Amino acid sequence: MCVVALIFLLSSLYLSATTEASKCSIDGFPLVKNISELPQDNYGRAGLSHIILAGSLLHGMKEIEVWLQTFAPGSRTPIHRHSCEEVFVVLKGSGNLYLASNSHGKYPGSPQVFPIFANSTFVIPVNDAHQVWNTNDQEDMQVLVVVSRPPVKVFVYEDWLMPHTAAKLKFPYYWDEPCFEAPATVRDEL
Amino acid sequence: MCVVALIFLLSSLYLSATTEASKCSIDGFPLVKNISELPQDNYGRAGLSHIILAGSLLHGMKEIEVWLQTFAPGSRTPIHRHSCEEVFVVLKGSGNLYLASNSHGKYPGSPQVFPIFANSTFVIPVNDAHQVWNTNDQEDMQVLVVVSRPPVKVFVYEDWLMPHTAAKLKFPYYWDEPCFEAPATVRDEL
Ligand SMILES: [Zn+2]
Ligand SMILES: [Zn+2]
Repeated sequence: MCVVALIFLLSSLYLSATTEASKCSIDGFPLVKNISELPQDNYGRAGLSHIILAGSLLHGMKEIEVWLQTFAPGSRTPIHRHSCEEVFVVLKGSGNLYLASNSHGKYPGSPQVFPIFANSTFVIPVNDAHQVWNTNDQEDMQVLVVVSRPPVKVFVYEDWLMPHTAAKLKFPYYWDEPCFEAPATVRDEL
Repeated sequence: MCVVALIFLLSSLYLSATTEASKCSIDGFPLVKNISELPQDNYGRAGLSHIILAGSLLHGMKEIEVWLQTFAPGSRTPIHRHSCEEVFVVLKGSGNLYLASNSHGKYPGSPQVFPIFANSTFVIPVNDAHQVWNTNDQEDMQVLVVVSRPPVKVFVYEDWLMPHTAAKLKFPYYWDEPCFEAPATVRDEL
């Protein structure tokens, strides 16, 4: 009984120590991480669960970031574009990719629709406006997302006809923003 | 019956056209690819299945590559190191990561062993020698691998005590090598 209590106490101490230490430092993380124990957040977007598997601030990544995102039925990314490379791998569920391959005029223009599904993969062409949408009303859609050159510099559109000049720049777009300690004045400005 | 035959004929034509066209050109691939229809190869390594989800030659990637690798029981990567960033996500199975965090002397030195398992993720520290091994004798181990700055420049070691100066340089290390048309003389040289 005493041993059980001791083990319990030690586990609690260990857990609280790792929780403390793992907030924003590389050292706090074990090298091999159990994804189901990683923090998730919706970053203010209804229906989203976003888990950073490898992040610029959290893990010191300089060239790539990897995220696991789960979209509840009906939820979606904003319409956006960026000059980094981005690769999606759909692990579960299904939905649509909307892609304006004709983004290169004054506004994105009406997008093509591509069905996406479990065990599919796609690359977003650099600077093309796009949106990923869980259009399945039954199932969550889970995707692995890889981007290059963090932190990502994103332009967000309210609709497909919004001029590029009116798109809202988000930079730096840190998902691990709680760890970002530089002055906040650089955000949301052109 | 005639309609069925026509559909069959058209599908065959379509399939053979895409198979032809998709060999080594971006244009031949549909934007959203069904992973189970992508080519796989073992690149001369027993027990490996390697599928390029996003490749430098195959898909014009300049900043990231994404691969899906399946290791049969007992199979493994060589001991190797590289200066690019690399992220693993274990989708199925289990095994070990061997990592020489002390790589920075004259040779890698004996590695630490980290158990890896389905739904785990890890980042390989830049320039640390490492090896991923399916140590489970029952199950395949499937991993998603992301690397930066393709083509990867890899140093391969025969064992953990091999001096860095004796490691074999493989560059460019194209998994999509059948698409590589430059002279082969640059390969396997220092
Ligand atoms: Zn995007
Ligand atoms: Zn590696």
